[in-house]
Amino acid sequence: MKTLDNLQQFTPPVRTLMGPGPSDVSPRVLQAMARPTLGHLDPLFIDMMEEVKLLLQYAFQTQNTLTIPISGPGSAGMEACFVNLVEPGDKIIVCQNGVFGGRMKENVERSGGIPILIEDPWGTAIDLNKVETALKTHPDAKILAFVHAETSTGVRSDAQQLCKLAHNHHCLTIVDTVTSLGGIPVKVDDWQMDAVYSGTQKCLSCAPGLSPVTFSEQAIEKIKQRQQKVQSWFLDLNLVMGYWGTAAKRSYHHTAPINALYGLHEALLILKEEGLENSWQRHTQNYEALRIGIENLGLSFTVAEADRLPQLNAINVPEGVDEAQIRARLLNEYNLEIGAGLGSLAGKIWRIGLMGYASNLKNVSYCLKALANTLP
Amino acid sequence: MKTLDNLQQFTPPVRTLMGPGPSDVSPRVLQAMARPTLGHLDPLFIDMMEEVKLLLQYAFQTQNTLTIPISGPGSAGMEACFVNLVEPGDKIIVCQNGVFGGRMKENVERSGGIPILIEDPWGTAIDLNKVETALKTHPDAKILAFVHAETSTGVRSDAQQLCKLAHNHHCLTIVDTVTSLGGIPVKVDDWQMDAVYSGTQKCLSCAPGLSPVTFSEQAIEKIKQRQQKVQSWFLDLNLVMGYWGTAAKRSYHHTAPINALYGLHEALLILKEEGLENSWQRHTQNYEALRIGIENLGLSFTVAEADRLPQLNAINVPEGVDEAQIRARLLNEYNLEIGAGLGSLAGKIWRIGLMGYASNLKNVSYCLKALANTLP
Repeated sequence: MKTLDNLQQFTPPVRTLMGPGPSDVSPRVLQAMARPTLGHLDPLFIDMMEEVKLLLQYAFQTQNTLTIPISGPGSAGMEACFVNLVEPGDKIIVCQNGVFGGRMKENVERSGGIPILIEDPWGTAIDLNKVETALKTHPDAKILAFVHAETSTGVRSDAQQLCKLAHNHHCLTIVDTVTSLGGIPVKVDDWQMDAVYSGTQKCLSCAPGLSPVTFSEQAIEKIKQRQQKVQSWFLDLNLVMGYWGTAAKRSYHHTAPINALYGLHEALLILKEEGLENSWQRHTQNYEALRIGIENLGLSFTVAEADRLPQLNAINVPEGVDEAQIRARLLNEYNLEIGAGLGSLAGKIWRIGLMGYASNLKNVSYCLKALANTLP
Repeated sequence: MKTLDNLQQFTPPVRTLMGPGPSDVSPRVLQAMARPTLGHLDPLFIDMMEEVKLLLQYAFQTQNTLTIPISGPGSAGMEACFVNLVEPGDKIIVCQNGVFGGRMKENVERSGGIPILIEDPWGTAIDLNKVETALKTHPDAKILAFVHAETSTGVRSDAQQLCKLAHNHHCLTIVDTVTSLGGIPVKVDDWQMDAVYSGTQKCLSCAPGLSPVTFSEQAIEKIKQRQQKVQSWFLDLNLVMGYWGTAAKRSYHHTAPINALYGLHEALLILKEEGLENSWQRHTQNYEALRIGIENLGLSFTVAEADRLPQLNAINVPEGVDEAQIRARLLNEYNLEIGAGLGSLAGKIWRIGLMGYASNLKNVSYCLKALANTLP
């Protein structure tokens, strides 16, 4: 039994993180977070904020001025998109093919919007035809919201085509790129995405806790024309813009998570050094190596090949195998974390991540070897 | 001009942080944040979450089960209290004697409540008589909300008496202890506080980005009896409780900011090692040393002695002195940060913090020496 008097320093072991995130954090990023804390109004820190914006524009492939990290995890980034863009009574088409589409629907409802839910089976991509039909059926819909890379299933949907469909029907888009950013192409300007949020703990290989977001001019226009205030003070982009807006004139909003931002700066610098295209290619190559090994073990993938995310692989649990026991053994005997299934896929799949710093051949072979030794 | 191609690693200098926060972060805490990232479902991490709860109960002097860090800065903690406790139409008495009371009012309005604003001049404590009158005038008020330690002015209000008044009139309390926790007594159970939020970057001397909160049984009861859902999904305590609730059964809500929580664990451990009472005493002693020095320099305090926070001192800028120039010289020549005034006190005061790890005699004498050398 833990009591106040027997608590000690926490010294975590070094795990290999191959679940759905957090992924292995680069030692460079860990080191950056331990640098001396500056004041949030220190000119040197404000300079660094400008650099983070520049680096995020690169990661998102956008010129959007409003490209910043929200001071909270991916769920806060999601909420920032919905509470700012959805006004009471707005009809929002929400695609659900996993856990996170469901969370989007919750966000629409809590923002006073009316969700129109388009469902696809978990483990499949969003059906473009269904979306087009919904857009035609609801010509008054304001926004199409969807998840680019479903973390709960390892499925990639066609973000470019979905954005095109939305714009053809005069809808803005809210897109979840939590698991895609840095791992597969996310081209905010080319694809004309409007409000996009991501996380730091997946393919950026940074510690969890921040949510990069970017907003198009059209999205900002909708926010500026709101009839009533954004329901969240903390996430009100009218206020957040004043804080992150320009280095020259900054209004105090909240105290930024200084050391976490040091980590994000370093993680984005690593991405830039490697180059986005090279990072995408590396994720694909390591997936290929994993795929061959998984098939050699007699295991199968949950998702059709064309819809798979190279950075997050859903593997079917063989009949009769206790999936939780395998995961526990991997963790305890190999210091290796892989993920379980969620919702309707709980108990049926494992999720093996190859994200960011963790996407390398050493991890692939270690994981395959550990699975081979552990499977009955 | 910064471009993507000339960005480099960010290596901040070691400043002495004696503004209104962030305060100097202990090297032990910085080191803790650089430890290897674990998965947020890792049994070892879940164990550490339990320890953080235990340590926060100590810091808050409470047995409240719902005592956790919110995964965002103090403003997110403030919003968590308001969006959960305020229901549309609820009348909320809000005391304002600085910046943060005003922010509370914003939170009430955005949560659909009706704020009754009680104003006191900036730099003075909350007037108990005015509050009692307001409670009598509005017998249907549901909550009294106030700031214990006003960061914008360095004023301490009488939290114990304010809570007593509120309960005498059947009101719950929402209390901002961002700047008080760890520096002066905050006794959640003894004083019967209901919803209390704080920050990590003041007297806990941790990096900014997390907000410790604690809720009484009465507060939880009000949340459970809500007629409509909490407007924020991210801050909905019904969901957050499922995540932080019990180690044995945890529902996934969001990915916790793992490394930031390592830092908080270490910061709270340091507080426990010193002992809360010893920490309060140290803050008072170092204030005394600062007070003598400030008076010897011919400077005066903004706040009456009885209402001063030992950890945050508002000093009047002498006539004819360019306060911003002094601060810039302290920063550039001494690597020393002190704070400016906000709102109606902008340009009129400096704010000198002696918080947490930064509350020591070395900092006091360094700051006095630097001021002596810099003042005209």
